[in-house]
Amino acid sequence: MTQVITAKALSARFDALGDVGVGPEGVQRLAWTAEDAATREWFEGQAAEVGLRVERDPAGNLWGCPDAEPPWWGVGSHLDSVRGGGRFDGPLGVACAFEIAAASDRPVAVVSFADEEGARFNTPTFGSKALAGRLDLPAVLARRDDDGVSLREAMRSAGVDPDAIDRAPEWLRTRLAGFVEIHIDQTTELARAGEPVGVVSGLAARTRLEVRLSGRADHAGTTPRSERRDALSAAARLIVGAEDAASSLDGDHAPLTVTASRIITKPNAPTTIAAEVRLWIDARAPGFDAIDAWRKRLDSVVLEIGARTGVEIEIAVASRSDPREFAPPLRAALSRACEAVLGHEPPELVCFAGHDAGVVAERVPAAMLFVRNATGVSHSPDETVSLEDAAVAARVVVRALETLA
Amino acid sequence: MTQVITAKALSARFDALGDVGVGPEGVQRLAWTAEDAATREWFEGQAAEVGLRVERDPAGNLWGCPDAEPPWWGVGSHLDSVRGGGRFDGPLGVACAFEIAAASDRPVAVVSFADEEGARFNTPTFGSKALAGRLDLPAVLARRDDDGVSLREAMRSAGVDPDAIDRAPEWLRTRLAGFVEIHIDQTTELARAGEPVGVVSGLAARTRLEVRLSGRADHAGTTPRSERRDALSAAARLIVGAEDAASSLDGDHAPLTVTASRIITKPNAPTTIAAEVRLWIDARAPGFDAIDAWRKRLDSVVLEIGARTGVEIEIAVASRSDPREFAPPLRAALSRACEAVLGHEPPELVCFAGHDAGVVAERVPAAMLFVRNATGVSHSPDETVSLEDAAVAARVVVRALETLA
Repeated sequence: MTQVITAKALSARFDALGDVGVGPEGVQRLAWTAEDAATREWFEGQAAEVGLRVERDPAGNLWGCPDAEPPWWGVGSHLDSVRGGGRFDGPLGVACAFEIAAASDRPVAVVSFADEEGARFNTPTFGSKALAGRLDLPAVLARRDDDGVSLREAMRSAGVDPDAIDRAPEWLRTRLAGFVEIHIDQTTELARAGEPVGVVSGLAARTRLEVRLSGRADHAGTTPRSERRDALSAAARLIVGAEDAASSLDGDHAPLTVTASRIITKPNAPTTIAAEVRLWIDARAPGFDAIDAWRKRLDSVVLEIGARTGVEIEIAVASRSDPREFAPPLRAALSRACEAVLGHEPPELVCFAGHDAGVVAERVPAAMLFVRNATGVSHSPDETVSLEDAAVAARVVVRALETLA
Repeated sequence: MTQVITAKALSARFDALGDVGVGPEGVQRLAWTAEDAATREWFEGQAAEVGLRVERDPAGNLWGCPDAEPPWWGVGSHLDSVRGGGRFDGPLGVACAFEIAAASDRPVAVVSFADEEGARFNTPTFGSKALAGRLDLPAVLARRDDDGVSLREAMRSAGVDPDAIDRAPEWLRTRLAGFVEIHIDQTTELARAGEPVGVVSGLAARTRLEVRLSGRADHAGTTPRSERRDALSAAARLIVGAEDAASSLDGDHAPLTVTASRIITKPNAPTTIAAEVRLWIDARAPGFDAIDAWRKRLDSVVLEIGARTGVEIEIAVASRSDPREFAPPLRAALSRACEAVLGHEPPELVCFAGHDAGVVAERVPAAMLFVRNATGVSHSPDETVSLEDAAVAARVVVRALETLA
């Protein structure tokens, strides 16, 4: 006996959120800012409307708690955004969660994780990591944003005591039986398959390499090619080599995505050969076998470029995230619920991004349901979703929760 | 009847210049600064010692004038430096010029050009361009340094009236019969040939391209390769393609040097695909035929990369300098003088950098003599020169001036 969740109801929730942080370059709701506080007010209003009691845990995560003894099932996502983001990455999952809590016969808690994007302090999935006890607190709290404000100061000014964060894990342990996150698809996979929703089987393995290329500053006009040690030339060859190494593995290990998106060149002057380049390369695949095979090819590419350009190339692993499989019983429950709602099994997808559900899954059963996104774009105003599809996802979760203990 | 110019005498002039602007990262004597003023004091002392009267022209160039009716032969170079430069690019030519003025029977003026490097306001060969009447004054004077100081303000604070610069061309027209600049070789060409000096036949043709690559910001993890429009990937392929196009022309058009040394990437974040890249590519060759042939190949490379990456690539010509041949009679006189001093003809070289002599050559006969540099490096503390070689160069100029009208 569940109420029917409609696109119209979801639309009303988005209308209430309004234009918080919306500017000409997209949505900007960075953690611990005035925009973040405005989304908190929205959360409190929505919770009151569906009869949930709002609490803020020691990491600043927002909880809409049902009037029942824990543990509860948790549903939710996050309300913060990247710089220049879209309207749906995060808020869609929270809006759906309020519909689910209202429609479900089970006691459901709505959770909005703090600072999921980590766009301000380079602290992605901050709130869920705090709940999982996975933060290196002294190092993380000392990080500074572009204006020199530390995370510690920012949290305090947003009314959260940074010295109490170590008590956050207790909340996850005592309150949640499991967690489900609804999120927009960040690819066109569902759109191409003509499916409104898909069950995420797990999160991909990820590694981020930081490459330092050391050449020599020389006059760009007068130094013959054979005498150059051009760090930018070597970096360009490395980017191409890293991408081509990934393509060459496609047959055996697809999908493997490799991206160089950040580069810092010194002295970065028009007539001086680059003396030093720092380059970040991100690689993701369903498992580490593909990433390791790619890394092996990359090492030969590096040797070849070093010999050719005279540039010294050092590679450090800046971070490495294990792949995370979501709980099979929960995925099965979501699949069965999809079949009941849609009349056919949903597709399963591997997700190549990080999400709070992936962190929570380290402690309690968790899963994710993706909603079709026609553009496949996220972290950009070009994100799209049909609220009809989102309503289907929310109905699927309500149905799945009915079948779970 | 000339005095013999010695390495010891040159060494004493460098000792007098001392450590002005010398720091752990090299020499820094930017135009219109306190370091620049300190080099002016040195110039005044050296001029007094050899009996020259110092005048400062409306562009801030320093003149050590002989006691004779103009026009005179001018010799000299510049005293300013790049950031992190060496001791010899510039000052070697001025130190030699004082020795030449002292040793020559002819009336010789020593000229030190203002702001040759243009490192502070991106105004290379400022002083000689002012003498040639080649500056777009309102635009140039409005340029600002990294601290927001305009060139107009900087000149005024250094005691030069920016509103009088338009009177500078008169000085060149009425005072100089011709001009010779001694400069360190900025390649290893002379060192490899075992020659202490070489005559520069002319300056290379140069073009600077500014490339704008427009892609799309997307999530670096979740966007499949086929759906990306990755501006940094396209930029990397363009750098490699531009270099390879130059190499492929080597047989027909050597030497052609192509350098990408400045790149600006947006948003330059570790997990967002680059939406936009600006890239500067510098190309130099003895004449425009090689550069034009290269540019034609580059256009095919651009089409191919655009089709492959979905990135829009626009190329603008940011600047283009004609090749400049130095005056054949002056070069011949320098060659004959070399033969007299050294017993053999000197090599002729094409110079791939810009120099004041190249600008002056637009108005009066001019030439350059290069001095061997073991490292071939310039614009760096690794510049080297033997003052014995420099003394040979100065003797050659004295001898050449004897034979000129």
